[in-house]
Amino acid sequence: MDSNKVVENIYLLVVVTLISVVQNAFFAQKVERECKNHQTHTAAFERVSCTNRNCMDAYPTFLAVMWCAGLCLSQAPAAFAGIIYLMVRQKYFAGYLGQTSQSTPGYLFGKRIIFFLFLMCIVGIFNYLLLRYYGSDYKEYVQTITGAASALLLLP
Amino acid sequence: MDSNKVVENIYLLVVVTLISVVQNAFFAQKVERECKNHQTHTAAFERVSCTNRNCMDAYPTFLAVMWCAGLCLSQAPAAFAGIIYLMVRQKYFAGYLGQTSQSTPGYLFGKRIIFFLFLMCIVGIFNYLLLRYYGSDYKEYVQTITGAASALLLLP
Amino acid sequence: MDSNKVVENIYLLVVVTLISVVQNAFFAQKVERECKNHQTHTAAFERVSCTNRNCMDAYPTFLAVMWCAGLCLSQAPAAFAGIIYLMVRQKYFAGYLGQTSQSTPGYLFGKRIIFFLFLMCIVGIFNYLLLRYYGSDYKEYVQTITGAASALLLLP
Repeated sequence: MDSNKVVENIYLLVVVTLISVVQNAFFAQKVERECKNHQTHTAAFERVSCTNRNCMDAYPTFLAVMWCAGLCLSQAPAAFAGIIYLMVRQKYFAGYLGQTSQSTPGYLFGKRIIFFLFLMCIVGIFNYLLLRYYGSDYKEYVQTITGAASALLLLP
Repeated sequence: MDSNKVVENIYLLVVVTLISVVQNAFFAQKVERECKNHQTHTAAFERVSCTNRNCMDAYPTFLAVMWCAGLCLSQAPAAFAGIIYLMVRQKYFAGYLGQTSQSTPGYLFGKRIIFFLFLMCIVGIFNYLLLRYYGSDYKEYVQTITGAASALLLLP
Repeated sequence: MDSNKVVENIYLLVVVTLISVVQNAFFAQKVERECKNHQTHTAAFERVSCTNRNCMDAYPTFLAVMWCAGLCLSQAPAAFAGIIYLMVRQKYFAGYLGQTSQSTPGYLFGKRIIFFLFLMCIVGIFNYLLLRYYGSDYKEYVQTITGAASALLLLP
């Protein structure tokens, strides 16, 4: 049952990863449809292609931070932050595809969520080092606080 | 020897990852050579660069799904599907670089394989939840079925 | 304490990943600032955007190889090589943004480090297979040699 113990610690992260893969496929299909409709590179194609590229550029960073946070500290808040990130990304994609006249959102998005996950990693490693050199384990407390703090991500 | 137990569960996935890295390096070298040959951005450079980008866009998605499938269910079918994906990608790259007059393949490729790996992840998580809440473990059966089903990927 | 045992084996890799994320954010901010300053796509924007893309193209490959090397063999040399890779990347980014007149560096960078990490993976898997089929474990020796060899990466 060793394998099941592994799954126990990562299954929420896997679920979020799968949802992000579905979203990637959705984005890619949008690009492909736009590409097939128009033989010439229109403004619409440029826009959808650029949006997709911005999302894809940030994707490995997001995955890496989410998995590190999930492995180092606790998976539930990390997966929750991941879900919110995916929602922000969806909104970003939709916003980018809007009217050209309106100002497009910038290159970056979801900075707050990435920062939260980043912080989780640091806290997790710090806690591990504390445990190793001083023998004091605050993981329980930290996990509770992180769980509560992740709710703050819902603020607009 | 704890580390060796970790290696036991992932070594096939690592092998596929390494092969994919070699392939990435091969693609990148093609781009670099084309880039050096021609100071101006020719059509050939555009094409090889675009192909490489399409491949790179899909790469994190592929890696994430393959590793999740390998960790959640069983590594041999996941690694096998990964190998086939790499072969499809090679063919895609070669096809893209062909004559401009012939229709280039679309933006997406290897959808079937990604879908298969995706399904493996879902089955793995579902099996874990079944085990957790009902105590019934079908992992043995599922792994056998998955191993057999992965042969279907060989169909053209 | 199972989770802490996981953290023990990966915490250096997580630290390097976090540093790489900070670097990614730094690159992305450079792109965003350039993008906002100039409404039209200037040569400077083209250059910073292209550099960022080259770095991002290689990023998943780097992450995958570093983590595989760290998991298969030993994390300290892998993390050390990762740090050096990040330094090379920083230099690449700065060099690319220099004068247009001077020759820009090529599409690829950090080949030596990727190759070193690649070799670590192969050695790790080879050692595992030796252990499995012949029962002889050279991991201790190999880890010592790898640690020493990683110092060679400091050579310019």
